[in-house]
Amino acid sequence: MKTLKFSKMHGLGNDFMVIDAINQQVEFTPSKVQAWADRHFGIGFDQLLVVERAQQVGVDFRYRIFNADGSEVQQCGNGARCFARFVVEQGLTDKHDITVETASGIIVLYVQDNHWVRVNMGKPNFAPASLPFEFAQQQAKYHIQVADESLEIGAVSMGNPHAVLLVDDIDTAPVALLGKALESHPLFPQRVNVGFAQVIDSATVKLRVYERGATETLACGTGACAAMVVLRAWQLVGDDVRLSLPGGDLQVQWDGGPDSVVWMTGPAEMVFTGTIADD
Amino acid sequence: MKTLKFSKMHGLGNDFMVIDAINQQVEFTPSKVQAWADRHFGIGFDQLLVVERAQQVGVDFRYRIFNADGSEVQQCGNGARCFARFVVEQGLTDKHDITVETASGIIVLYVQDNHWVRVNMGKPNFAPASLPFEFAQQQAKYHIQVADESLEIGAVSMGNPHAVLLVDDIDTAPVALLGKALESHPLFPQRVNVGFAQVIDSATVKLRVYERGATETLACGTGACAAMVVLRAWQLVGDDVRLSLPGGDLQVQWDGGPDSVVWMTGPAEMVFTGTIADD
Repeated sequence: MKTLKFSKMHGLGNDFMVIDAINQQVEFTPSKVQAWADRHFGIGFDQLLVVERAQQVGVDFRYRIFNADGSEVQQCGNGARCFARFVVEQGLTDKHDITVETASGIIVLYVQDNHWVRVNMGKPNFAPASLPFEFAQQQAKYHIQVADESLEIGAVSMGNPHAVLLVDDIDTAPVALLGKALESHPLFPQRVNVGFAQVIDSATVKLRVYERGATETLACGTGACAAMVVLRAWQLVGDDVRLSLPGGDLQVQWDGGPDSVVWMTGPAEMVFTGTIADD
Repeated sequence: MKTLKFSKMHGLGNDFMVIDAINQQVEFTPSKVQAWADRHFGIGFDQLLVVERAQQVGVDFRYRIFNADGSEVQQCGNGARCFARFVVEQGLTDKHDITVETASGIIVLYVQDNHWVRVNMGKPNFAPASLPFEFAQQQAKYHIQVADESLEIGAVSMGNPHAVLLVDDIDTAPVALLGKALESHPLFPQRVNVGFAQVIDSATVKLRVYERGATETLACGTGACAAMVVLRAWQLVGDDVRLSLPGGDLQVQWDGGPDSVVWMTGPAEMVFTGTIADD
């Protein structure tokens, strides 16, 4: 019987099965991924991360992401951190700055001594068309009508579309209600992720994120970056912000320069290693 | 760093972390069990099964069960099958009939060649006081008033209390509604598990079970036994019945004799083996 070794990891409660497909021969079929993803009959995870040999010269690894339904997806901030810690701890590289091919381009990951991982999240795009968001003019704040209420929101693409709004009290914010209403608002034809931010001080923010098609999640990496860049554009925070999400903390840095990328630093935890039959 | 080996198993989707505490030294605290049980931050399981050395002569093992909240519990039919397959496959015994000390007494488990496990589930107790069920007189059928409806139910203790009722169509049965209403009915002062049974023929039953304090579950071993003995007492089935639950099938045998025990046979699946840090 053939067996497959894997690791189970999480980043802020967003959890992953991670497979070294360099030193193991594995075939991925949607039905196999679905069976592994099942939390009662299988291993259970939000996403499967697969480490492969890079196809381009000068790149360290190729990194693929599968959803629990077996479909391949592009990006996952929490997954990227787990991927980086995995290749370092498994001895697949000696480097601490790792260059990776993903379905959405090449990314660089830095594994710190404290096991936190720093990820280049790319440049924010405030152009409404990038989300898409059906406003002709780019603005710092947009007023839109949701359920008889006029809301003031920021809008930015971090590779995926985000709306951000301020709340006075993160614990009582109507995340489910407004998240659902904004997600499917006609001005966002491809729907939108919605961040609810409470600013504590210029370096500290509490955040809850309603992900499109998902409901509220424990932690959304691109949502943390989106909230930070919107709040910085509104001059409510500085260049280096700690964001507290229900699943834990992330640190996001952006200096507001027109060519500046967003840096996100956060934890990646190893939970256990496992072996499963793979026929 | 100390590590702990474990297996992840399931019986009809009721899933377990199983630990050999004979060849490993382990301490169990509620906070540790809760952390392991978490499906995003930990391993994820319904219950933890612990294999220990027997304390009595002539008994093969001691078997302890912890809920995901860290509390120790008495019985779990699906867990007992997984326990038996685990001790055989790990080479902890050469026997295929295994005598086990549990918190609710000694049980005997038979591991069949096809990996199904046969469990002596003990004698059903139809006395209302055994559930408890506040009827003075033991009856085959009880009429009770639930939500403006008069229901005909059977009531039996299989170590835990069960109410059983017939439905015409298992797929459309109001399991959540009636389950919740019956569970907390004043005639069941310690609440009750509720089985909804559709009889296909004298050897085949479809069953859904609402477990007290849980909502509907994929499969309940004692619920399957309770349904079978009530349906046999009502002369709707014979001595050997296949029950189809949402998580899979169980075979239950009972000949109706006053001293006859109930035998339940069902699957126990090994999913993966794992290693986790245990400081």
